[in-house]
Amino acid sequence: MIKAGIVGGTGYTGVELLRLLARHPQVELQAITSRGEAGKQVSDLFPNLRGRLDLVFSEPEHAKLADCDVVFFATPNGIAMGMVPGLLEAGVRVIDLAADFRLKDAALWQQWYGMEHACPELLDEAVYGLVEVNRAQIKQARLVANPGCYPTAVQLGFLPLLEAGLIEPSSLIADAKSGVSGAGRKAAVGTLLCEASESFKAYGVPGHRHLPEIKQGLQRVSKEPIGLTFVPHLTPMIRGIHATLYGRLTESGRDLQMIYTNKYKGEYFVDVLPPGAHPETRSVRGSNMVRLAIHQPQQGEVVVILAVIDNLVKGAAGQAVQNMNVMFGFKESDGLEDIAVIP
Amino acid sequence: MIKAGIVGGTGYTGVELLRLLARHPQVELQAITSRGEAGKQVSDLFPNLRGRLDLVFSEPEHAKLADCDVVFFATPNGIAMGMVPGLLEAGVRVIDLAADFRLKDAALWQQWYGMEHACPELLDEAVYGLVEVNRAQIKQARLVANPGCYPTAVQLGFLPLLEAGLIEPSSLIADAKSGVSGAGRKAAVGTLLCEASESFKAYGVPGHRHLPEIKQGLQRVSKEPIGLTFVPHLTPMIRGIHATLYGRLTESGRDLQMIYTNKYKGEYFVDVLPPGAHPETRSVRGSNMVRLAIHQPQQGEVVVILAVIDNLVKGAAGQAVQNMNVMFGFKESDGLEDIAVIP
Amino acid sequence: MIKAGIVGGTGYTGVELLRLLARHPQVELQAITSRGEAGKQVSDLFPNLRGRLDLVFSEPEHAKLADCDVVFFATPNGIAMGMVPGLLEAGVRVIDLAADFRLKDAALWQQWYGMEHACPELLDEAVYGLVEVNRAQIKQARLVANPGCYPTAVQLGFLPLLEAGLIEPSSLIADAKSGVSGAGRKAAVGTLLCEASESFKAYGVPGHRHLPEIKQGLQRVSKEPIGLTFVPHLTPMIRGIHATLYGRLTESGRDLQMIYTNKYKGEYFVDVLPPGAHPETRSVRGSNMVRLAIHQPQQGEVVVILAVIDNLVKGAAGQAVQNMNVMFGFKESDGLEDIAVIP
Amino acid sequence: MIKAGIVGGTGYTGVELLRLLARHPQVELQAITSRGEAGKQVSDLFPNLRGRLDLVFSEPEHAKLADCDVVFFATPNGIAMGMVPGLLEAGVRVIDLAADFRLKDAALWQQWYGMEHACPELLDEAVYGLVEVNRAQIKQARLVANPGCYPTAVQLGFLPLLEAGLIEPSSLIADAKSGVSGAGRKAAVGTLLCEASESFKAYGVPGHRHLPEIKQGLQRVSKEPIGLTFVPHLTPMIRGIHATLYGRLTESGRDLQMIYTNKYKGEYFVDVLPPGAHPETRSVRGSNMVRLAIHQPQQGEVVVILAVIDNLVKGAAGQAVQNMNVMFGFKESDGLEDIAVIP
Repeated sequence: MIKAGIVGGTGYTGVELLRLLARHPQVELQAITSRGEAGKQVSDLFPNLRGRLDLVFSEPEHAKLADCDVVFFATPNGIAMGMVPGLLEAGVRVIDLAADFRLKDAALWQQWYGMEHACPELLDEAVYGLVEVNRAQIKQARLVANPGCYPTAVQLGFLPLLEAGLIEPSSLIADAKSGVSGAGRKAAVGTLLCEASESFKAYGVPGHRHLPEIKQGLQRVSKEPIGLTFVPHLTPMIRGIHATLYGRLTESGRDLQMIYTNKYKGEYFVDVLPPGAHPETRSVRGSNMVRLAIHQPQQGEVVVILAVIDNLVKGAAGQAVQNMNVMFGFKESDGLEDIAVIP
Repeated sequence: MIKAGIVGGTGYTGVELLRLLARHPQVELQAITSRGEAGKQVSDLFPNLRGRLDLVFSEPEHAKLADCDVVFFATPNGIAMGMVPGLLEAGVRVIDLAADFRLKDAALWQQWYGMEHACPELLDEAVYGLVEVNRAQIKQARLVANPGCYPTAVQLGFLPLLEAGLIEPSSLIADAKSGVSGAGRKAAVGTLLCEASESFKAYGVPGHRHLPEIKQGLQRVSKEPIGLTFVPHLTPMIRGIHATLYGRLTESGRDLQMIYTNKYKGEYFVDVLPPGAHPETRSVRGSNMVRLAIHQPQQGEVVVILAVIDNLVKGAAGQAVQNMNVMFGFKESDGLEDIAVIP
Repeated sequence: MIKAGIVGGTGYTGVELLRLLARHPQVELQAITSRGEAGKQVSDLFPNLRGRLDLVFSEPEHAKLADCDVVFFATPNGIAMGMVPGLLEAGVRVIDLAADFRLKDAALWQQWYGMEHACPELLDEAVYGLVEVNRAQIKQARLVANPGCYPTAVQLGFLPLLEAGLIEPSSLIADAKSGVSGAGRKAAVGTLLCEASESFKAYGVPGHRHLPEIKQGLQRVSKEPIGLTFVPHLTPMIRGIHATLYGRLTESGRDLQMIYTNKYKGEYFVDVLPPGAHPETRSVRGSNMVRLAIHQPQQGEVVVILAVIDNLVKGAAGQAVQNMNVMFGFKESDGLEDIAVIP
Repeated sequence: MIKAGIVGGTGYTGVELLRLLARHPQVELQAITSRGEAGKQVSDLFPNLRGRLDLVFSEPEHAKLADCDVVFFATPNGIAMGMVPGLLEAGVRVIDLAADFRLKDAALWQQWYGMEHACPELLDEAVYGLVEVNRAQIKQARLVANPGCYPTAVQLGFLPLLEAGLIEPSSLIADAKSGVSGAGRKAAVGTLLCEASESFKAYGVPGHRHLPEIKQGLQRVSKEPIGLTFVPHLTPMIRGIHATLYGRLTESGRDLQMIYTNKYKGEYFVDVLPPGAHPETRSVRGSNMVRLAIHQPQQGEVVVILAVIDNLVKGAAGQAVQNMNVMFGFKESDGLEDIAVIP
């Protein structure tokens, strides 16, 4: 049993971490912090946890985070970078679910996130926590940058073809659709039920913060520069991301399906669907799975990859637990065995 | 490990049984039948089960149900009663999720279900599987009639006050609201997304089949005849039942809250909320919990009880597994530890 | 053509008023005020109005409201009462969509709304704008208090039987369900899509502000004191109220259906459905209709009335326009001819 | 006043036609046919029409369609082509909302629709009813092929740039998302609320029937062959299509916004949003509007056009009425003045 702490547990990634860790066989939840809710029972805020988790929100200062083996940050961007150096010094391993350590280039980070980075010296050490890509490094990491939700789906979808050199890196298109929980649990007019249900829209077309993160991840496996058009959309449902990925094939006649099944052979959380399939986001709702399908419409030059995840699980809290499992040598699926709830 | 079979596994209660039993520590799923889907992988129909359940639908005749320790019927009404006598004879214990064995009076059953009962001689032996009421009998039962969804919520809500003689039995009102999954997974215009979403309606006001089932259950604890008005409604969501129950108090000044906490002390799946609370159906989504709140508006003569369940879990498949756990001496919460998924 | 002004046009009743008045054949929209959005084009906030309404939000001070023939208040409670005396003095007729003038008793108003009334001397003059009840008085009124959404549905449902003396006034139950737009267009966690969709709950069971308004309206036609239990619920959809009303019959054998068809004969906006019907809220979505059905389950002592309205139309902006039509001698259906959008 | 008939009025395009025509100032609805519902009041099936339309479904044989000035076909594909030649001969003008007359090439039609065409000789005469493109021809047409829903949004989005020669015709991508009403009002498991809500998926990726229709329309303005990848998706809402269109620019530095505002100047139903905007489908719900926005992310080589319509209005019934208005010389917006209902 290891001791875990959560900083900032009142958002959707926070409650999802709680749901997963409350049943994790190897973890004892030691502390959860929230300035706004300090002193309140966690289950008063999240009644699904009544009887299942006896924990009180505390001020970060009193949370004895330094006694933990691992601390998760489920905070807005810019918070973790202020606290991480101290925790690392105290020997605590850290998994940041926000964006503070995802980009390697501090200047680029500053450009997209609008603030100066507090500890650029850690950016190099931080391991990007896409387990299917960086498993070996994560095992040794002191600091893991948990990937964004869109970047998880888009990278796992594009990487096999990019690695194989089978698509042009310069003309990638990622048309992604997210449930509303991606916008977080904060009072805002735009995500009210009456504004966001029964409607569909794109947002952030001029530029979304996940764009540089995705490009950085794809660039790692490409010799030529990545050219990516990324358009996120808001779809009227709570959970789920569906990424529809378009690439221009560089050769014809290759067995694309096989490339994916080979690439993800042995990956517990990646499910390559049979040819012709169309994955539904609900097939991964509440679970840490990624489901992928590969299409080549009319045997043309364009390949279409469909990828679905639950943005709060594989796209956030579940992936964080997966990272923890790898870091501490647990079974990678510990605490992540939930089957998607259908219907 | 016991061997379990499921008859009729293509509906929503079927897939929910599969989700729960696939992870149950004491159960090996032996067979699942479906005439329509025989020969097909279960996970082809329900992709959430891909990689988690390797089972093929079979014709009932070939399913070797007689080799099972327990068989669940997740069939339309009227199917189980044709097969149950043979299974009991073979020593198999049966849990029927349909209505065939819920009413003790064969004539009443025939009146409400529109067919003659095939084995009225078993109605007496069948135990009504509301565990919180009949735990001792269920332990010994060969045949358990799993309660209906509305009856579960309404009975658990009304029983404490009725037993205590604190409400008039003759003027009960149960205004109940169900998610659309209560209507099952069958092609029908009325439950299309375009018909049932963004709308709310009552149905079956002249008379619903769950009325006699509820009255039978409430009558057991009342000396005077039960008078119940039961109005079910369809609410635009997938899962969940919310029962709003109204009773006229026979005395004033009693601590109603205490009556509920005492009655359900030690019940793992019943959560009596603190005074003033309003349970949300999502707080039990995907879980086997019942959450209750007791109100006495303006300290008047009318008590209002609010009860929520997931109609497919505590209202169907979860309660069936709970019954199985009791019957076979397992821990009552085995396979039912899922925490509701919020958001 | 009359000149109309709207105070507080950025909420859901505001945009609904705009939608209706923009096409009204007899009305010229003169001004719409909003401190927060002053200077902004209305259609920038509400893109459905692009090309259909060329109007800019203005500060209340600059809106020349005194030049209008009629001013609508679509403001939070407590705003109208500060401005109405001045407008009346200037000869402007006022329709308040908030609650400031709905209760006749200033002390009761203060108790439920938590502030002192600014002009209690106007409470007597204000006409309660339930057209089907007060048409003659509304015609002459300087000041109309537009009814609340729940009170509209509940009163139109109960009044025929109460007037006829056919139900006990002391034991009425109104179990009402509202879409989320009833909570308004303000940033709040509780009405986020991720909190309010796929869930159902009661709220305000200890006491809701619409309770005294309903009781006042029902008391008018009853000799004995009204005893009413009113439980509102939030249902996961945008628009619509469904009221399920329960009354205890004082005599048997009466043709209840006939009482409703006679009572509402000639009412353009009240549709009494044939016996056995279950109205859906979507059948009135976007329209000013009320649809009612009357049931007497199993010919027992309890009558069940089902009433549906669109809370933003007949429950707010539509009823306000209906009031205006009556006040100015227009055809009552002018600007209110929209047919509900199905699906 | 002209006399109009509808063949096949029980689907979603049928009821939408009824909603629009019931209030059209120039049209008298003469007949509506349905074999399945013959003899039934239209308003019994669609209660939103109670009191607003007094019409009974009739057998096609008895509908006196030949006495109508115009007949709309809201039937499944393959029905209209059997009846149209007779109606034309009788001097009736026809608007087919199905696909029978959309493709000019009978062999191509047969390939995609799986049946032989019954009157290929009419394909040439039939005018493709995209009013913004073919207004002059529609005015004279005896037979109008009302465009498909996806083709309407995709063509209106791509045409200005294609005509201007500013995007490569060979590498177009249309990622389109539709509400569930696009699947029609027929009993089917896949469009049940419990299957289609709270989930998102692509479908028809290998090839969708609207692909050849779109390509035919785009080819008209392009010298080089059109290469189009079209991926439709199902989004969990009732109405609305959002098309996200990607094209590769052939030159840089052009004012793309201006090209759209010029192209659609004077078009009542096309609204080009200001730069930077993201149209929401709800901004056109229930209305005949198209809203477009043009983006060039990071001033790169890829242009992204966002187009929204209501699939049942501009994508079906509304466009049909617009066609009728043009054919009979009415004001193009007659009967189509509805403002989108928000929220």
